[in-house]
Amino acid sequence: MKLLRYGPPGQEKPGLLDRDGNLRDLSAHVADISGDVLLPAGLARLKALDATSLPRVEGNPRLGSCVGGTRKFICIGLNYSDHAAETGAAIPPEPIVFMKATSAITGPNDAIEIPRNALKTDWEVELGVVIGKTAKYVSERDAMDHVAGYCVINDVSERAFQAERQGQWTKGKSADTFGPMGPWLVTSDEVHDPQALPMWLEVNGHRYQNGSTATMIYGVRYLVAYLSQFMSLQPGDILSTGMPPGVGLGQKPPVYLKAGDVVTLGIEGLGQQRQNVVQG
Amino acid sequence: MKLLRYGPPGQEKPGLLDRDGNLRDLSAHVADISGDVLLPAGLARLKALDATSLPRVEGNPRLGSCVGGTRKFICIGLNYSDHAAETGAAIPPEPIVFMKATSAITGPNDAIEIPRNALKTDWEVELGVVIGKTAKYVSERDAMDHVAGYCVINDVSERAFQAERQGQWTKGKSADTFGPMGPWLVTSDEVHDPQALPMWLEVNGHRYQNGSTATMIYGVRYLVAYLSQFMSLQPGDILSTGMPPGVGLGQKPPVYLKAGDVVTLGIEGLGQQRQNVVQG
Repeated sequence: MKLLRYGPPGQEKPGLLDRDGNLRDLSAHVADISGDVLLPAGLARLKALDATSLPRVEGNPRLGSCVGGTRKFICIGLNYSDHAAETGAAIPPEPIVFMKATSAITGPNDAIEIPRNALKTDWEVELGVVIGKTAKYVSERDAMDHVAGYCVINDVSERAFQAERQGQWTKGKSADTFGPMGPWLVTSDEVHDPQALPMWLEVNGHRYQNGSTATMIYGVRYLVAYLSQFMSLQPGDILSTGMPPGVGLGQKPPVYLKAGDVVTLGIEGLGQQRQNVVQG
Repeated sequence: MKLLRYGPPGQEKPGLLDRDGNLRDLSAHVADISGDVLLPAGLARLKALDATSLPRVEGNPRLGSCVGGTRKFICIGLNYSDHAAETGAAIPPEPIVFMKATSAITGPNDAIEIPRNALKTDWEVELGVVIGKTAKYVSERDAMDHVAGYCVINDVSERAFQAERQGQWTKGKSADTFGPMGPWLVTSDEVHDPQALPMWLEVNGHRYQNGSTATMIYGVRYLVAYLSQFMSLQPGDILSTGMPPGVGLGQKPPVYLKAGDVVTLGIEGLGQQRQNVVQG
């Protein structure tokens, strides 16, 4: 299934995309795409519905983040071998973990707002993993049972805030609109191999990132098991798994976002995003 | 007011402590101590109630975290001048910001669970600031209008996870039970000066931390304004403002928590916590 949320910010309704690409409303069945709806039993109940019998949503409504009520937005740094090679960084012996503010989450096509006093606002196309079942001290063998599905994330980052304003990356990762998520939560059963997904990102039509989840250093299975040793993961928590080469910071000279830019990005099978960049 | 939440984990009801120290139920008036209830208008409505007319809660129920539905748990590192002096660390030129997982939040007297494979589980008594109104790009002059109140927080930390397992502190700050919060949310009108509060922490009756918010480097007013430049703060978000000297890591030799220990801590006017330490 391709689950989604549509409508004005803060008032999103649950929906799904049917096989013909029509948006269908799920309000009669669930209140939101969040929490217990993401449990295996919750997803099974939605999957049993006849999608063609659901009300069709007319027009072209705004899409919200594909998951609601997220309490943790956990990110992995320096997790692509080709990106590490590009920057000359050593492969980290363990995953690098940091958090983005959940208030950064926006819809896949909402504007990116450059924060006031920002100097180096940058992009990162990333594979998002949506947790579907509480995970605490889970093994690699069992880890994938805790994944509801996948989505596209743009881990928007302000490099000056991140690296030049005193330790810890949170400061450069958490501005409002720095977490476009969606268009869809594609459930695990429809993603044959999360470690073989081509991904790309363009700014104003120029392709800067062109990679694949195949070059991830620590894959989804490992990361879910690993993180669950340090904190419990709950349904609706989001794990953003790092990015392939080609961010603005890595250009020679570096290239950063400015008002008026248009960012487009996508991951095969998970859909595309498009963001206009504005000054905050 | 001293607002609180009582009852079994995940099923807490809202309440308050009246002037005579009786626990009173607020369920007829608000669903939880969270979100819009923390707005100035929400708190004014509760303050207008005659506390003695509220149902009295008998017995001695468990207390939950004094705030529900927290979406961001933001912490400040190295924020006490006497702690910086003790460790020989330079005063940071800007606040050091990191995040704890919201799933770490527990009641003030719940057990602290030492994570599996932990080596150096430590304590930190901290002043917690509860955001009461959305703050985005606010000035220092206006910052305090966005604070609903204060509470005691034990920022439990696993130093090996934090510092020896690859960058970023989140990993050592986020285990379940690493965020005891409460017993009460004491509203701002009852805290004359948040920068003059004695605070202490004992392990097995030995006093390790004995400080005051007076030695905070970046005070509450500054921190709220500062953070709001990097991310928006929402009602129910928690800011933990750093700790005075005397953590386990700072002892010679270092002292860490072990199963069977009892941690007690408090801040003047904000109440006390007591945690039994168990092995996870």
